[in-house]
Amino acid sequence: MRAVIPFKKSNAKSRLGALLSPEEREELAMAMLNDVTGTLLGSGCFEVVDVLTTSIIEVKGANIVLTEMGLNEALNEYLQKMSSHSMNEPVLIIMADIPLASVRNIKDITASAADIVIAPGRMGGTNALFIRDPSSFHVDYYGTSFLKHREIASRNRLKIEVFDSFNLSTDIDEIADLAEVLLHGNGQAARYLKKLGFVLSENGGRVGVKR
Amino acid sequence: MRAVIPFKKSNAKSRLGALLSPEEREELAMAMLNDVTGTLLGSGCFEVVDVLTTSIIEVKGANIVLTEMGLNEALNEYLQKMSSHSMNEPVLIIMADIPLASVRNIKDITASAADIVIAPGRMGGTNALFIRDPSSFHVDYYGTSFLKHREIASRNRLKIEVFDSFNLSTDIDEIADLAEVLLHGNGQAARYLKKLGFVLSENGGRVGVKR
Repeated sequence: MRAVIPFKKSNAKSRLGALLSPEEREELAMAMLNDVTGTLLGSGCFEVVDVLTTSIIEVKGANIVLTEMGLNEALNEYLQKMSSHSMNEPVLIIMADIPLASVRNIKDITASAADIVIAPGRMGGTNALFIRDPSSFHVDYYGTSFLKHREIASRNRLKIEVFDSFNLSTDIDEIADLAEVLLHGNGQAARYLKKLGFVLSENGGRVGVKR
Repeated sequence: MRAVIPFKKSNAKSRLGALLSPEEREELAMAMLNDVTGTLLGSGCFEVVDVLTTSIIEVKGANIVLTEMGLNEALNEYLQKMSSHSMNEPVLIIMADIPLASVRNIKDITASAADIVIAPGRMGGTNALFIRDPSSFHVDYYGTSFLKHREIASRNRLKIEVFDSFNLSTDIDEIADLAEVLLHGNGQAARYLKKLGFVLSENGGRVGVKR
């Protein structure tokens, strides 16, 4: 079984620009990528963890696959290569910005009996996608990709499971999301935010972060 | 085992005011309450489902308990009454605005071996709280109640489980949250929003709702 994490380093996490410099955003993105990679490796479920990326980076324990293509093109080429190999082995595609993902989550997803397992992100996203037979599926990210992936599975008569996880649904895109890392995280991303001086703040009963 | 849902009808869901009239907000709140109640009843886990409310309402299958107290006071009095009864039975406190809650979620929470099970809401909230021994715990909602409940459990040397669920984390408070109901809901709240003419919309790759 393989796992693949698509990752874009340059101008990463631009919506965090109000409170983080470009360098800090890149470092946070790398910390989250390391958290996700560590969780995948810790699960013991995968022979290979690939990071599909446009920049030359180093990630402990992961195999770096350079690409210049966009997200969908790069992943669909990856799936196609898998399926053209003699071993058409299952693939877990998982986003780099979900640092709360747990070893238990990964074990549960890969233990599913379904053909396709989708862990939705908020607002219709797809944060983890387990594909038992890469030759039978293609991805279509952006927008309401959750609905698109459900539709692709249904069109190919694949049995789908929607994986219910707050951890996996929590992608870190906006300032408010940083609160979730401070509240629930215990990896590199949480440590990095604390090092930068981020703390939880309460304003009229509503929780946020400040630096 | 008992379940209790605190509910406030008057001026419900004020942060949805930009797209919903006060009457519509009350009807949506009632639809969500009915979804949650139906799920609790459908789980078969509870002898009684209580709705703790400030208004006279009718909810199919639920026992209405009127109170004029605030959330914390009302729930802590409820727990105290439970524990002073001969049967100090387990209680599940669950919010009325999480219409995605599933029967499976409820069965899994109540099957936990822990003393306290917390399903976090986004931004530090507590959306479901299972208390095995009501005499050993009190609630403290508002703000980062997730951290406060974890601290109360730890102070009382209670074993805690954090329950990882996107369904339970998704409380419907703001306009953007309505997208989650349209994307993942299949109960009264989803039907009511569709009846009002709500649909998903995409704007520059970002998903939202429009009416």
